[in-house]
Amino acid sequence: MLATAVAEARAGLAEGGIPIGAALYDFDGTVLGRGHNRRVQDGDPSAHAETTAFRAAGRRRDYRGTTMVTTLSPCWFCCGLIRQFGIPRVLIGETRTFHGGHDWLAQSGIRIVLLDDAECRTLLREFIAARPALWNEDIGHE
Amino acid sequence: MLATAVAEARAGLAEGGIPIGAALYDFDGTVLGRGHNRRVQDGDPSAHAETTAFRAAGRRRDYRGTTMVTTLSPCWFCCGLIRQFGIPRVLIGETRTFHGGHDWLAQSGIRIVLLDDAECRTLLREFIAARPALWNEDIGHE
Repeated sequence: MLATAVAEARAGLAEGGIPIGAALYDFDGTVLGRGHNRRVQDGDPSAHAETTAFRAAGRRRDYRGTTMVTTLSPCWFCCGLIRQFGIPRVLIGETRTFHGGHDWLAQSGIRIVLLDDAECRTLLREFIAARPALWNEDIGHE
Repeated sequence: MLATAVAEARAGLAEGGIPIGAALYDFDGTVLGRGHNRRVQDGDPSAHAETTAFRAAGRRRDYRGTTMVTTLSPCWFCCGLIRQFGIPRVLIGETRTFHGGHDWLAQSGIRIVLLDDAECRTLLREFIAARPALWNEDIGHE
């Protein structure tokens, strides 16, 4: 499942965007929605990867059995999404470059799987080194 | 400022949507972005009012001095947005129909102003009475 999120991150990078990718999977391994950060591409500050994947999945009555896969620890915005809609499991590529709200999700009973993936880290770290102001803008840091 | 959010909620209702509206104001009273819930209109489950108003404001380097105005207590998703991007003040039309995460925002140092507005309550309560399944879908309740 992480490979899908990484492919999304790479697609975002190729478009000149921030390389973070995500996908929402159903219990049986079906991809319900996938996407990547689109702040640069769409001028949309709400287009974080997880929210983009969630949007791509369209309307659903419930999120039972789904898994949100993301290349990076989700920020408060995307953690709020996961908690509000009851996505029961989150698979995270890495948490070292950015530590978002996944501990808060774990405390609320959501299952968190941490992978510490080197490819996810390298992709984002190289981008941040090249475009620090853009990264800070994306997470609301001044 | 609440009048802008209420006008957005009414516009959403007129389109057949969920009547929740929001606006992001700058320190000097300028509207940076405004919008309403667009789940029905766009088939977009991420289009909560606050997120729609935030998106409409476009990219910004920081949110110092801004106020998010909304007709309803923000859910976890929209609270996460407010916290992640450092929106320092939230003005809320009512919290009785739905109690989201505004206490959590207050604990993190964000200034919360509660209004208990009858028009906001009536608009949403009448809608929920008429379309309970749609409302439950919008907040991820099964």
